[in-house]
Amino acid sequence: MSIRIFITGGTFDKEYNELNGSLYFKDTHLSDLLEMGRNRVSVEIRTLMMVDSLEMSDEDRDLIVHQCRNCEEDKIVITHGTDTMEITAQILGKENINKTIILTGAMIPIKFGSSDGLFNLGSALAFAQALPKGVYVAMNGRCFNWNNVRKNKLTGVFEELQ
Amino acid sequence: MSIRIFITGGTFDKEYNELNGSLYFKDTHLSDLLEMGRNRVSVEIRTLMMVDSLEMSDEDRDLIVHQCRNCEEDKIVITHGTDTMEITAQILGKENINKTIILTGAMIPIKFGSSDGLFNLGSALAFAQALPKGVYVAMNGRCFNWNNVRKNKLTGVFEELQ
Amino acid sequence: MSIRIFITGGTFDKEYNELNGSLYFKDTHLSDLLEMGRNRVSVEIRTLMMVDSLEMSDEDRDLIVHQCRNCEEDKIVITHGTDTMEITAQILGKENINKTIILTGAMIPIKFGSSDGLFNLGSALAFAQALPKGVYVAMNGRCFNWNNVRKNKLTGVFEELQ
Amino acid sequence: MSIRIFITGGTFDKEYNELNGSLYFKDTHLSDLLEMGRNRVSVEIRTLMMVDSLEMSDEDRDLIVHQCRNCEEDKIVITHGTDTMEITAQILGKENINKTIILTGAMIPIKFGSSDGLFNLGSALAFAQALPKGVYVAMNGRCFNWNNVRKNKLTGVFEELQ
Repeated sequence: MSIRIFITGGTFDKEYNELNGSLYFKDTHLSDLLEMGRNRVSVEIRTLMMVDSLEMSDEDRDLIVHQCRNCEEDKIVITHGTDTMEITAQILGKENINKTIILTGAMIPIKFGSSDGLFNLGSALAFAQALPKGVYVAMNGRCFNWNNVRKNKLTGVFEELQ
Repeated sequence: MSIRIFITGGTFDKEYNELNGSLYFKDTHLSDLLEMGRNRVSVEIRTLMMVDSLEMSDEDRDLIVHQCRNCEEDKIVITHGTDTMEITAQILGKENINKTIILTGAMIPIKFGSSDGLFNLGSALAFAQALPKGVYVAMNGRCFNWNNVRKNKLTGVFEELQ
Repeated sequence: MSIRIFITGGTFDKEYNELNGSLYFKDTHLSDLLEMGRNRVSVEIRTLMMVDSLEMSDEDRDLIVHQCRNCEEDKIVITHGTDTMEITAQILGKENINKTIILTGAMIPIKFGSSDGLFNLGSALAFAQALPKGVYVAMNGRCFNWNNVRKNKLTGVFEELQ
Repeated sequence: MSIRIFITGGTFDKEYNELNGSLYFKDTHLSDLLEMGRNRVSVEIRTLMMVDSLEMSDEDRDLIVHQCRNCEEDKIVITHGTDTMEITAQILGKENINKTIILTGAMIPIKFGSSDGLFNLGSALAFAQALPKGVYVAMNGRCFNWNNVRKNKLTGVFEELQ
């Protein structure tokens, strides 16, 4: 069966607006990334929202939970802003959805060349295929349980709680 | 414990010689890739050889087997040319080494911009952490058992034998 | 004799801060660009400031005029933010400095992959070598006199005044 | 009036064949480069051939001369392999065509990321606009007369004859 990919925005998909010098969301680059990686894992992609994760609302997270619970696939990858990835992971984790759910993201926008997004996407798809049911965060090549992960705001690196 | 990474060459590490227009090996780009991916998995890297996998000899493969058996880590990623990756996988598979060994590679050199190498590396490191003991090929986002994989020479895509 | 390159900041040298998602200035990328272009024109590089051109003050522009007048080279390239490039060009143009002065910049930061900066730099260095004394803006492959150029804010393209 | 761009192949347009690991020509990347550079100089592009310049024949060069002489534009840029660029420049130079003709090329294929092609193209278009009638080679940010240029085979750098 396919892996479901839900897109929510985050640094992953930010672009540079050359008319005013700001960063913004236009379209997701996920298909480009999968093509670049010569991916042949069957995937179903759906964009749920396109937001900076600092602006993700309770309602947004309800939608993510709803979609994870109700999609027909039992392996799910969610691209997500890194700033509040741990919060969405906790909410999903407490829902006890009987699926393998991997949240991942990027520190550098894909469009800015040397992005970690391609590496993280390869890693997230692999963890989705290989890990048992549960909710995980895949960042920095590692995989964390939803109840034992945070982003270190000083270093930008994901780590266990203690 | 760390993951051991063995480098053997392959398209992954090919460079363009601008003086004569040929492709050649200079140094491995693996550290650059790991940095680009913001990798924080502890790894030990060792270059075993730097060859086109079409020119890999029996002796070269003996060396790879020997190193896999004798290194202290029990999770191993091997970067390898794609043309004979399945052969090295079969030789390693029949050795019954009690470790998780993942062979991976790239269709496009890392130095040529839109490489699949970063995606495959993320995927290989994830499979190495999540899969049970065995020998696997990680390409195209997928993971194959050593005894059920081949590279389709017409499409360049890895697939099961039947 | 060498060409003098003065760096003042602008989009050209903006970088992405992966800890807070903002754009900022760290170092100039001009030497990287010149190396990438295999440049062999003798150049002397000096950073005068590192500012967004919307924040360039009268005092900043006095400094640029002073440096252009007093440096020993008579061919000068200035990297500059595009938003007020025409203003600095006008101020320099009215000074009647007996040198060939070319202002150039970029719409996309060099660090964001598909930048126009490398193209513009090649063009600016060529115009500096080939054009008579005067003050010019080199953008979009074209070269404009200081008193007949503006950036079209809607399209981001440089054009003549009428 | 427009600048005429003639494409003849060379490193500029080489691509990597991921099925057999060889370098080959498919299509020209010139339009991509012009777009990347936000070029607004009016250009007319025509591909005359797509060859490695080591394999350029007398007949090929006759065609280039013929096209330069007969096109309606009087400013011409020719993209050309670097290995025999000086030979084509000499042949064109001796023809006394009353136009500004600039030959340029690249040491690294455009598709391989850090190419000098974008820099050289910006430079060639600028020299074509600014220089008097004549035949020139634009490489390494510099511009050489057709009768005083060679590629140093050891360093890959273009230089005067003495």
